[in-house]
Amino acid sequence: MTVATHGKGLYPFTREVETWLRKQDAANGLLTLFVQHTSCSLVIQENADPDVTLDMRDFFEKLVPEHGEGFRHTAEGPDDMTSHIRSALTHVSITIPVINREMGLGTWQGLYVFEHRARPHHRRVIVQFMGE
Amino acid sequence: MTVATHGKGLYPFTREVETWLRKQDAANGLLTLFVQHTSCSLVIQENADPDVTLDMRDFFEKLVPEHGEGFRHTAEGPDDMTSHIRSALTHVSITIPVINREMGLGTWQGLYVFEHRARPHHRRVIVQFMGE
Amino acid sequence: MTVATHGKGLYPFTREVETWLRKQDAANGLLTLFVQHTSCSLVIQENADPDVTLDMRDFFEKLVPEHGEGFRHTAEGPDDMTSHIRSALTHVSITIPVINREMGLGTWQGLYVFEHRARPHHRRVIVQFMGE
Repeated sequence: MTVATHGKGLYPFTREVETWLRKQDAANGLLTLFVQHTSCSLVIQENADPDVTLDMRDFFEKLVPEHGEGFRHTAEGPDDMTSHIRSALTHVSITIPVINREMGLGTWQGLYVFEHRARPHHRRVIVQFMGE
Repeated sequence: MTVATHGKGLYPFTREVETWLRKQDAANGLLTLFVQHTSCSLVIQENADPDVTLDMRDFFEKLVPEHGEGFRHTAEGPDDMTSHIRSALTHVSITIPVINREMGLGTWQGLYVFEHRARPHHRRVIVQFMGE
Repeated sequence: MTVATHGKGLYPFTREVETWLRKQDAANGLLTLFVQHTSCSLVIQENADPDVTLDMRDFFEKLVPEHGEGFRHTAEGPDDMTSHIRSALTHVSITIPVINREMGLGTWQGLYVFEHRARPHHRRVIVQFMGE
């Protein structure tokens, strides 16, 4: 699965995963999402108020600042090392129980790719189902 | 499984999961814990000294402060957006190998629901076993 | 599997896991890594530039400082409570899809034990494969 990103922030992809899951013969089991990058990550967050995703983006901008940290790894720009750290602080893989053909997400939970780089990217997420 | 919380902090539930696991016909496989909320989370932490859980709670209070961050998402109170962020910084799902009918936890590892909201809640955690 | 550490920092062990996986009759399924400690953790990070691992180590040293936090849990030294917190901020378990006998890692992704304690340790990581 590929998620197109255009700058830092959270990109929802719950619906894409639901569509993929419906096409499998998946009744009960375990769904694994795994992002194949070290400068973006996965989070499950509130899906109701878009302000949540903006606040999240801005908070990580302050928590792991691009300037003044004395990073060694700067060849790819100031948003490179911060991306690796923000990725470590969030998630590269998430596992979700599948029950009665549905992901076991709570009412307010949505799946997001958290892009940490400023430039546009196509992010690859492996989606795997194990079960019956 | 439901874990009752009464304010911010870590709530142990290792014993409840062990009891659940013993009732399954579970010899070897994978146990998944998945919390269905975006304002609490899961952590595995030291189970010996209760001070660890208090220090953990207090550190997150400073790391993601309730005031002065200029959050947009404030309708549900100052502990709402901070809860989402603290949840993203910890874990919504944890997978644990099951070996010879036991979770593969280290000696000092305990399972906790990390409540980020000030008011009491009943938190739902999906517990799933896959294997034989 | 055991990973020897000698002070704070990231210790690669991708090759050891690849070697282990090749010895299993593992074609497609899910690989779980689970560290049995609360003062070290797991991260997937860039495997190309060693500066990334040094910047990562140094950033966590600032993000969760050893002094001035007023920790209660100090009997085992100033690097004890910080280790628990840094562990909670990163990962105790990571799940990786296995496809055609290979882990589904991206080109630049490597597996690391993130040691948070100053003294040398032997860290136990459970490696489990489920699938066919």
